[in-house]
Parts: sequence; structure tokens; C-alpha cells
Amino acid sequence: MIRNNVKVVAFDADDTLWVNETYFREAENEFASLLSNYETENKIHQELFKKEIKNLPLYGYGIKGFVLSMMECALEISNGNLPSEILSKIIDIGKDMLDKPVVVLDNVESVLQSLSKKYKLIVATKGDLLDQEKKLKKSGILQYFHHIEVMSEKKEEDYTKLLKHLDIKPKDFLMIGNSLKSDVLPILNIGAQAIHVPFHTTWQYEEVNSNSINEDYITIKSIKHLLNYI
Amino acid sequence: MIRNNVKVVAFDADDTLWVNETYFREAENEFASLLSNYETENKIHQELFKKEIKNLPLYGYGIKGFVLSMMECALEISNGNLPSEILSKIIDIGKDMLDKPVVVLDNVESVLQSLSKKYKLIVATKGDLLDQEKKLKKSGILQYFHHIEVMSEKKEEDYTKLLKHLDIKPKDFLMIGNSLKSDVLPILNIGAQAIHVPFHTTWQYEEVNSNSINEDYITIKSIKHLLNYI
Repeated sequence: MIRNNVKVVAFDADDTLWVNETYFREAENEFASLLSNYETENKIHQELFKKEIKNLPLYGYGIKGFVLSMMECALEISNGNLPSEILSKIIDIGKDMLDKPVVVLDNVESVLQSLSKKYKLIVATKGDLLDQEKKLKKSGILQYFHHIEVMSEKKEEDYTKLLKHLDIKPKDFLMIGNSLKSDVLPILNIGAQAIHVPFHTTWQYEEVNSNSINEDYITIKSIKHLLNYI
Repeated sequence: MIRNNVKVVAFDADDTLWVNETYFREAENEFASLLSNYETENKIHQELFKKEIKNLPLYGYGIKGFVLSMMECALEISNGNLPSEILSKIIDIGKDMLDKPVVVLDNVESVLQSLSKKYKLIVATKGDLLDQEKKLKKSGILQYFHHIEVMSEKKEEDYTKLLKHLDIKPKDFLMIGNSLKSDVLPILNIGAQAIHVPFHTTWQYEEVNSNSINEDYITIKSIKHLLNYI
């Protein structure tokens, strides 16, 4: 099912190589409880999500944009009367997130060790540039990768640009990731190959109806099953 | 003075290709005047600079980190009692900065046009990934570049990584930029070549005593003089 001429295997980072979404969920819960005097926590979650999506074209992905969206959302929820202690705590939520330990997911290292002997491996991720580079350094799996590509988006045109930059054809490229929307769908649409490794938690924005995928793709339960396919 | 075997010419972006520092100065002045009830504007500038440098390892370069540092600084200057209107205005300063027009500097386009016929040109810049990509798109000079490299730092090790990634030797690489600290000094130290094109305004953090440079380098008054050297 996977064609044999793969030259570069690219791994998504957050929730594919290491835990990430869990920290965002914790931060959202902390944010909602900070503002629970003003609104129900459910409503706060909804408003924050709306604010994040609205700011995405301006701020892009990553923790810093998320913190700025929390502040703007908090200002609105408090009717323009936000206590400074809450502002200060939001800044701290962001700094804590940027300082989290990197928890590499099960079996990732052994799979990388094995694949790095046969393929050029890269990381292809969204998020804050410095943050992702630091996570890769802290992860202890840096040595398996040729380099890291931090992308501002993961749409078809972004992957096409990446392939041009890597100087390879779509058929030479295999993407591994947890997001159907970002790691699988656009990849199949440009004629490259993808394998889906779900993570237990998915950011609402990354959710996609799998019926909208017209091509075949493989979903594997654990990253260690990768070795059965390439 | 420039060796003839250059394969890749890399341009710094902010204040080399287009205006940038001017917008940061305007933002700093606006910030200082927002808080002028609490402190002298001079003191506010000093405190903001200190906060930015302190947060640099966590936030990296770029507008979003700058906005987060402004907020933290404002909280401290207001003794933990920051009016929400000021917070809201700081958010707006950041959004305005992210939405500024891109003003390409004089003679940049004609120089790129000429050099792109002979060399592979790239952009090598710090800052927010999405923001720099958008500026390059808005600039109208995107077509002269093979691609853009947004770097989390511009130290020797970062340039060494970049050269590995480009698969070229130091002697094949020429860097053009306005910052002695980021665009010239580390480049000379790894045996690559650099030409310095000063901009009238330099961020305090980028200032360097030119006596600390042990190698010869060329400073040109206008980017159009580049064509006299390569």
C-alpha cells in the first residue's frame, strides 16, 4: 500500500512524537477557572476557541498566539474590566507551557532508530519556531532527524513548497502524523503518501470528517506498526 | 575581497530588505506614552528593553513575544494594577504591527533582479515565522528568492546548521545584512562571507562594538553597491 520509493519520511511533532494537546487542554481549563466568576466554563471554552480561530491568520499557531488570544478573550468576558491578577496568571500559564517537559510518546524512539538507517527523516510541524526547536532538543530524539521544518500552515501549497525545498517529488515523500486535516488529507491531495497515527486528544480545529477524504490511507494504532509498512 | 565561488547569497530581511525597526520604535513610543502617568518615558523604555531581553530565551524574536513583554512590563510599572483600557491598547499595538505595510528599501528590487540571474538567493531572518512569510509575500520581491529561512537565532551554530541544510560549504555562502552582531560577525567566524549594509536605526540589542570583529569585512552605504563586489 505504501509505494517503495520513499526518500524522505516526515513526522509531525505535537501529539505524534510527543505530548502536546494535553497541555493546551490543561491551560484552557485553568483559563476557564480563572474567569469562572464571569461565565460558565463551557461558554468560556467556546469563546476562547472562537477567538483563537479569528486570530489565526494574524498570530499563526503556537503558544504565544494562544496566550494573546486568552488575554483578548479575558478582556471581553470581564466586560473590559480584567483584574490584573488574572492577566498576570494568564502570562504565567503561557510561560509554564513554554517550559513544559517533553514527553516522547511510546515506541517513538525505537521506530526512529530503525527508520533512520534507511530513510532521511525530518520533522514537519506547525507552532512557534523557537518552541519547537527547543522541544526537539529536549526530547532526546534530535539525532534521528536531518532537520526540522517549522511550517506556518500545513495546506497543500505549504507541502508543495516543502517538497520543492527538499528537491524531491511527491511520490518520494511519506508524512506521518496524528491530524487527518493537516498531516494526511493535503498530503494525499498532492500525490504524496501519508500514514495516520491518531492521538487520544484532538484540537477541535484539527477535526475533520473522514468521509471528506477521497483517497485510501492507512491508520495505525501505534507508531510501532509503521515498521510493517515501510 | 569577496571570493568568487559564492553559490548562495542570503539576505537578512528586517531593515535590510524592508523597514522594520522604525515600527518597533513607534510601538515603544506609543507604549511609553500609554504608561506616562506611572513613570518617565525614558524609564519605561529601559524597563521594556530589560523585559524583552529577559524573555528572549523563552519567547524568541518577533512581534508576539514583544507584545507579551509589553504586557508584563506594563503590569509591573502599574504596580500590578493595570487598567484594562491600557491592556486592550497594547493588544492593538501588536495587531497593528502585524498588519503594517511592507516598505521595501531603495534599490533592493533592482539588485535582487540582477543577482538572481547568477546566484541562488534566499532570505535568512529572525522573527515570527508566519509574520515574516507574510511580509515576503506582501513585499512583491518573493519571486527573486529560492526560499525563506526563518531562524530562531543567528549565532554561529545556527548558520552552521543552515549551511548543512543547504548542503554547501562556508566559502560558498555570502550573507548580506544590517546587523554586525547577527549578519556579519558569526558569518565571518565560521569562514563564510558577509557584507554589511547599515540601516539608520538599530535595536539596542543588536549593537556591537566593531572592534570586536577580528576579520575584514566590507560595509556598503547602499545595497546597490553590492553589484560592485559580486
